[in-house]
Amino acid sequence: MNESPRIITLTTDFGTSDAYVGTMKGVILGINPSVRVVDLTHAIPPQDIHEAAFTIHSAYRYFPKGTIHTVVVDPGVGSHRQAIVCEINGAFFVCPDNGVLGYLLQDIDGSPLPRMNVVAIQNPAYCLPEISNTFHGRDIFAPVAAHLSRDVPIADIGPPVENLVQLPIPIPEVSGGMITGQIVKIDRFGNAITNISESALAGEVSGYEINVRGTRLTRLNRSYAESAVGEPLAIIGSFGLLEIAINGGSAENRLGLKRGDTVVIRKAHEPHQKI
Amino acid sequence: MNESPRIITLTTDFGTSDAYVGTMKGVILGINPSVRVVDLTHAIPPQDIHEAAFTIHSAYRYFPKGTIHTVVVDPGVGSHRQAIVCEINGAFFVCPDNGVLGYLLQDIDGSPLPRMNVVAIQNPAYCLPEISNTFHGRDIFAPVAAHLSRDVPIADIGPPVENLVQLPIPIPEVSGGMITGQIVKIDRFGNAITNISESALAGEVSGYEINVRGTRLTRLNRSYAESAVGEPLAIIGSFGLLEIAINGGSAENRLGLKRGDTVVIRKAHEPHQKI
Amino acid sequence: MNESPRIITLTTDFGTSDAYVGTMKGVILGINPSVRVVDLTHAIPPQDIHEAAFTIHSAYRYFPKGTIHTVVVDPGVGSHRQAIVCEINGAFFVCPDNGVLGYLLQDIDGSPLPRMNVVAIQNPAYCLPEISNTFHGRDIFAPVAAHLSRDVPIADIGPPVENLVQLPIPIPEVSGGMITGQIVKIDRFGNAITNISESALAGEVSGYEINVRGTRLTRLNRSYAESAVGEPLAIIGSFGLLEIAINGGSAENRLGLKRGDTVVIRKAHEPHQKI
Repeated sequence: MNESPRIITLTTDFGTSDAYVGTMKGVILGINPSVRVVDLTHAIPPQDIHEAAFTIHSAYRYFPKGTIHTVVVDPGVGSHRQAIVCEINGAFFVCPDNGVLGYLLQDIDGSPLPRMNVVAIQNPAYCLPEISNTFHGRDIFAPVAAHLSRDVPIADIGPPVENLVQLPIPIPEVSGGMITGQIVKIDRFGNAITNISESALAGEVSGYEINVRGTRLTRLNRSYAESAVGEPLAIIGSFGLLEIAINGGSAENRLGLKRGDTVVIRKAHEPHQKI
Repeated sequence: MNESPRIITLTTDFGTSDAYVGTMKGVILGINPSVRVVDLTHAIPPQDIHEAAFTIHSAYRYFPKGTIHTVVVDPGVGSHRQAIVCEINGAFFVCPDNGVLGYLLQDIDGSPLPRMNVVAIQNPAYCLPEISNTFHGRDIFAPVAAHLSRDVPIADIGPPVENLVQLPIPIPEVSGGMITGQIVKIDRFGNAITNISESALAGEVSGYEINVRGTRLTRLNRSYAESAVGEPLAIIGSFGLLEIAINGGSAENRLGLKRGDTVVIRKAHEPHQKI
Repeated sequence: MNESPRIITLTTDFGTSDAYVGTMKGVILGINPSVRVVDLTHAIPPQDIHEAAFTIHSAYRYFPKGTIHTVVVDPGVGSHRQAIVCEINGAFFVCPDNGVLGYLLQDIDGSPLPRMNVVAIQNPAYCLPEISNTFHGRDIFAPVAAHLSRDVPIADIGPPVENLVQLPIPIPEVSGGMITGQIVKIDRFGNAITNISESALAGEVSGYEINVRGTRLTRLNRSYAESAVGEPLAIIGSFGLLEIAINGGSAENRLGLKRGDTVVIRKAHEPHQKI
């Protein structure tokens, strides 16, 4: 074994209480015994395409080039939605064409879109011989990912696809020194992650006043521990995005925050400007 | 490394909030550093042998020949129940002799039973030196599985066992064009999986009337999405078994379904027969 | 590949509903594609340093020499707490210096402490180029663990550290044939694990009377199944510690037990002593 083993990641809404995910791994290892399989998460809320899209976008860049990301959140399984393979910047994505690549295809900061290469999965040679109506994760996505990890060229999988299903990604609005964004993700700690990036913030405001559901914050923390335990705070989190958090607690529970909540940032009127 | 690494799967009721499963993996990798370990699920409800039996039966066939399946749902740990290794059709099962192999040993369709080869785990050379009273997963099942993955012959593990503990598997009754089965598994999506197989259905009924807890369904879907969101439906699911589901929702919650509920299928009286 | 692949274990309070853990694995495999990554648990309650300390202490000894244990329960992330690597008895621990190694550094039985070798993580060459304020698991602990698994000497990571932050570990009190300990862990089954070891018990009492929250037990079981289903019992569990359990049920729920509850063991007055 002279080459490094390839990596396949799995992101699904299957949970881990059934053996659905384990079965996919059996299929994958049967095709490529040396591939490494990494779970991103299987706790995407059932059929929550937005959450899957945010998750895969935030995680994929931390994997080596050539990693194959399998994303199976698939309310349309068995219907006419297409199954696709998408190559972007040396990363591969195997998924239904239902918007799960939304955050990859549309940058919230207006950066240019990456070059991509998309095919529809149509070659039955890379799927299981029998394809069920309800579990394409096992019968289509897992075997295709495994074959890709054995260097099957993407063009062998199926014909090119031009237009992908779009997911409406919330883009922050910037006008007159004011940024209006929203909460796009609540994590396990109850931290509320917004769609307002560090760079958007730096460019538009100097003194901050951040408002969300009646909570007003006036500065950015450098760490959670900089605030007293139980205090709400704002911080640039690990996604490079503004987060609303509570030191030692859950901002979701304590401030009543929800995905979709509006977050407004204004340039604060500094005292010397009033004189 | 010229050969493919062997695979060990783990199915337990240990949950993942403690380090019990991780500790088993430490024991396994200490004995065979190159084996691949795959979690099927660790969320079997505590001591639910039926759920474990259904799970391992539905998943094992998707793993390559030679895979070793470790199933530790073991209410009798430390008592006189036997620990066994069972070889069936090139797959190995390492487990307590308490019925967890029930769905493997008795086909719900009446197909002939597979040939099997069973031994009791009695050779201490393949267990940890100290065996606790409460965690044979770590002290017996994990090390035995790891040694099997290094090609230890099953006959070295212990003496042959003739009769295994039986699990009463619910078998559908077929009479006069009517099938009476039951729900044997509810999955994470709230889909209710019955013990009525696609082949039983095809052979016995042409027009369907499916009744379960007051819900009446008259056809088989080809996909969830074929029904309106929120509508109950019947479909042949990924286990090859009849499932009761709700498009975009939970049949368990919406229809009040439970494992053990009776499902009755009758040949529907078609309108033209009434004329 | 002539050598066995090294193992990295992960213990965190990150949960598995977000992709935080998967992202750490991407970082690790990007640095060392052949390392084996094992999850101990990611369900440590948020910021519960004691639970993490108990968990890593109970599990690490089941892993082969050279295993690298990454423990990220880190309420002080981004503040001035140190990040450290600690080598004890051929095992490596990569973690914040906040007490998570407490059970490793102070034996509850008074055994001599292991020799250890500790450095502060200060060499940026072994961290990610950009270090966030909130996710050192990804930016510092994962890459350092991965570099250690490639045989980077611990001395290259940073300068020696003399004094570690101590965690107050509850030590049982023994006096006059009476042992006063406490519950230090409740597991997924609702078993209540105490800090009273088998050896402490064997040395101090012969006939037992164990009292905890109004429940009185007078003997040690050899297996759960030795008691009737639903009965409370005491047993030396898989940690080598006294556990309070219920055969087929949860001692936590049925007896109202909590971590921190006092457990008192007295030498029982045997009938013949009263005469």
